[in-house]
Amino acid sequence: MKKKNFFLNKGPFKLKVFFPNISNNLNIYDIKPLNEASKNELTFYDSINYKDSAKLTKASACITTERLKIDLPNSCEKIVVKNVLFEIAKVIKKFYPDADLDYPDLTAKKPSKSKFPSVKFGNNVLIGKNVKIGKNSQIGSNTIIEHDVLIGKNCVIGSQVLIKNTYIGDNVAIQDGCKIGLKGFGFIPIKSKNFKFPHIGIVKIKNNVEIAGSCTIDRGSLDNTFIRENTYIDNQVHIAHNVKIGDNCMIAGQVGFAGSSVIGNNVSIGGQAGISGHLRIGNNVKIGGGSGVVKDIPDNQVVMGYPAVSIKEFLKKK
Amino acid sequence: MKKKNFFLNKGPFKLKVFFPNISNNLNIYDIKPLNEASKNELTFYDSINYKDSAKLTKASACITTERLKIDLPNSCEKIVVKNVLFEIAKVIKKFYPDADLDYPDLTAKKPSKSKFPSVKFGNNVLIGKNVKIGKNSQIGSNTIIEHDVLIGKNCVIGSQVLIKNTYIGDNVAIQDGCKIGLKGFGFIPIKSKNFKFPHIGIVKIKNNVEIAGSCTIDRGSLDNTFIRENTYIDNQVHIAHNVKIGDNCMIAGQVGFAGSSVIGNNVSIGGQAGISGHLRIGNNVKIGGGSGVVKDIPDNQVVMGYPAVSIKEFLKKK
Amino acid sequence: MKKKNFFLNKGPFKLKVFFPNISNNLNIYDIKPLNEASKNELTFYDSINYKDSAKLTKASACITTERLKIDLPNSCEKIVVKNVLFEIAKVIKKFYPDADLDYPDLTAKKPSKSKFPSVKFGNNVLIGKNVKIGKNSQIGSNTIIEHDVLIGKNCVIGSQVLIKNTYIGDNVAIQDGCKIGLKGFGFIPIKSKNFKFPHIGIVKIKNNVEIAGSCTIDRGSLDNTFIRENTYIDNQVHIAHNVKIGDNCMIAGQVGFAGSSVIGNNVSIGGQAGISGHLRIGNNVKIGGGSGVVKDIPDNQVVMGYPAVSIKEFLKKK
Repeated sequence: MKKKNFFLNKGPFKLKVFFPNISNNLNIYDIKPLNEASKNELTFYDSINYKDSAKLTKASACITTERLKIDLPNSCEKIVVKNVLFEIAKVIKKFYPDADLDYPDLTAKKPSKSKFPSVKFGNNVLIGKNVKIGKNSQIGSNTIIEHDVLIGKNCVIGSQVLIKNTYIGDNVAIQDGCKIGLKGFGFIPIKSKNFKFPHIGIVKIKNNVEIAGSCTIDRGSLDNTFIRENTYIDNQVHIAHNVKIGDNCMIAGQVGFAGSSVIGNNVSIGGQAGISGHLRIGNNVKIGGGSGVVKDIPDNQVVMGYPAVSIKEFLKKK
Repeated sequence: MKKKNFFLNKGPFKLKVFFPNISNNLNIYDIKPLNEASKNELTFYDSINYKDSAKLTKASACITTERLKIDLPNSCEKIVVKNVLFEIAKVIKKFYPDADLDYPDLTAKKPSKSKFPSVKFGNNVLIGKNVKIGKNSQIGSNTIIEHDVLIGKNCVIGSQVLIKNTYIGDNVAIQDGCKIGLKGFGFIPIKSKNFKFPHIGIVKIKNNVEIAGSCTIDRGSLDNTFIRENTYIDNQVHIAHNVKIGDNCMIAGQVGFAGSSVIGNNVSIGGQAGISGHLRIGNNVKIGGGSGVVKDIPDNQVVMGYPAVSIKEFLKKK
Repeated sequence: MKKKNFFLNKGPFKLKVFFPNISNNLNIYDIKPLNEASKNELTFYDSINYKDSAKLTKASACITTERLKIDLPNSCEKIVVKNVLFEIAKVIKKFYPDADLDYPDLTAKKPSKSKFPSVKFGNNVLIGKNVKIGKNSQIGSNTIIEHDVLIGKNCVIGSQVLIKNTYIGDNVAIQDGCKIGLKGFGFIPIKSKNFKFPHIGIVKIKNNVEIAGSCTIDRGSLDNTFIRENTYIDNQVHIAHNVKIGDNCMIAGQVGFAGSSVIGNNVSIGGQAGISGHLRIGNNVKIGGGSGVVKDIPDNQVVMGYPAVSIKEFLKKK
């Protein structure tokens, strides 16, 4: 599945439009993460955690800091700034002026029978332009599917659901009240008026996933948010931007994921647990209910507590 | 109030259809919990916690384990298996093929004035077949009441609410955005495609209950979910399948209940507390905000912490 | 912005209607908090925390206790009772009989183009009487704005949102599924049928605020609920009645606020943290994710844990 353009790209722009002091005046066509950017694309590098990707990036230019620029390849024009996120946000805002807010899709309307002959719809379903829905799928009443969303076959989407900026595989069940593909919680703090970080990523939900009622799943900022195959998610779970959840996971009710964490396969997470941002949780990890996970967890661990520690250590403390 | 059939029962089936090695070839008409099953009904017994009910069951047949079968009466045909839940799930799926997913009620439509002469409806309310709503009740805009739901008199149901598989008493207030009667979070984990546990139970909400905004309440799997009289529930509370909450309880915002726990009368629970599954919380118990309750609590206790302990013990530790 | 009457005031009433033993038979026109009440208005005083306001109140009468009455000015008729909240609730119920439940606004209907020439609406938007929406604002599909709500200019309100009893400034973004202005969780516990505390306060949301998906914000009981300028709130946050959040705050996902707490400016709160009721959180405070705050926090503190303590103390304990 290739990433589509949910947002209109106003590029290309000359690099100098953004950075007049840069001599290299190449055309920039898009902004991508380090590992996805290619020629004539801009990327950013702001944390040593992403050193490996930085070394291999094919981007023609990269916004970074004085300290980190050394990791980037020679082929990449380094743009050294003080606040990497603010600079990249301003560039994205220029390319994608409509991605910094969730402007509702006002073109969504009642689906035509002829366009979706094998899909069953409830009442007052609203479907945007270019939406595709596979055979034998069902969409509950008062649900809104915004433009360009793709939904596979044999899916059951509940009532009062909202889906935008999202690709959904086959045999996926999404229960009532879920809001999927929202702009994430990202902005540059500024007194009196924050600068909103545009979110041009999407949500990808793979085959056989089940998402229970009233969950919220934010789309990626530059990267994407992923829910992989056969993962089951209970009611009122909150999944922030760029989170990647592996195959065969079980996520109990009211769990919350902060942004950009990567969860392995076969991970189970008890109710109300919280996962901080930018973490890596290994495969086959079990996280106890109510835990607060604040650091990476290797494969096969069982953890519990706040902050979460191995179950052995947790029991010793009590 | 007798349990109604929200789901179509495809039975009876001969027991041999499911278990060819069983010599007793009786007709099975339904599947019920241990304490509700009667002649020609199938039940299951998979935890010593339910020994008392096992001894008294009137079911004609019971799926159980080698170790537990001894507790069942002679009159009951014992079906010994390795994975009780998986076997019962497969049987329920055969009886009730439509209960393993929340297929939206596509027949719900605008209510006719003549059918509900004393009920006030907002705009775009959708009502399923055989719904009954008592005198002087009000239903807010964009709310969906699916087929066969019963709502008592003097109820105020907010806007953007969804109710299915549920019986509601009199003088009940349900605020905006609640999703009630959803399929619970139950499945048999299988790599690549989990087996969904069908949910044929319902939600019963008694008189004078108040449920605040954006709560989710799952219906029972085999058993039912109960909210008893005069219990008040704040915003964003999550109540899993089979939970039973007593009379006069106060449940603050964002509390979560895992499946099958039984809460006594006059229980108060502070905000964001979590109650693990299969617990018994006594009468007059007070649970502090943010607590994580992981074991039974006798009557009249005040507990706090994670895991929750008596308030005395909690303060000593600090 | 002056407080409007979302609820019909049935007054004035003679004070004797409620308290036959009081000799002073003045006319009471309204009920207000201590610091807002003026001549011919009734207030209440039930906690020493509000002593400063009590001393300065301009109310003509005040419901209070034997112990607290000494703090009130001579000009104020003291009405000494056992259960202050119950007595004031009964009076408010008489003045505002429709404020003890969220009766849905059944008059809300499709907006007329001529009334909102510069507002963009999605499908099936419902707008109540006397709603005002500023220039260039957008309202997503299936959203309901109940009577008398004011929304400023350049606002983006998502889909499936419900707003009532609320004033919203300019440049405010409210994402999909939020429920704002609901009656809070307040009642006088009575066996078999609690007495619901009427909520006649409103929600005020100032300029440049962003509120992410599926949040719930309750209106004030007597006082109002405030979200001040440039404060950003992530998904699934729960804000109870009378809470006041300052300028430039960042509130991460699934945070919960119990009633009547006052949060300063520039406060950041990590995901899933909980703030107990009636607290004062200073300016520039940072509260770690998952924390449980149970007491006041002075300016500039960094706190963490359950119960939350200074970060230094938290790390020492681990």
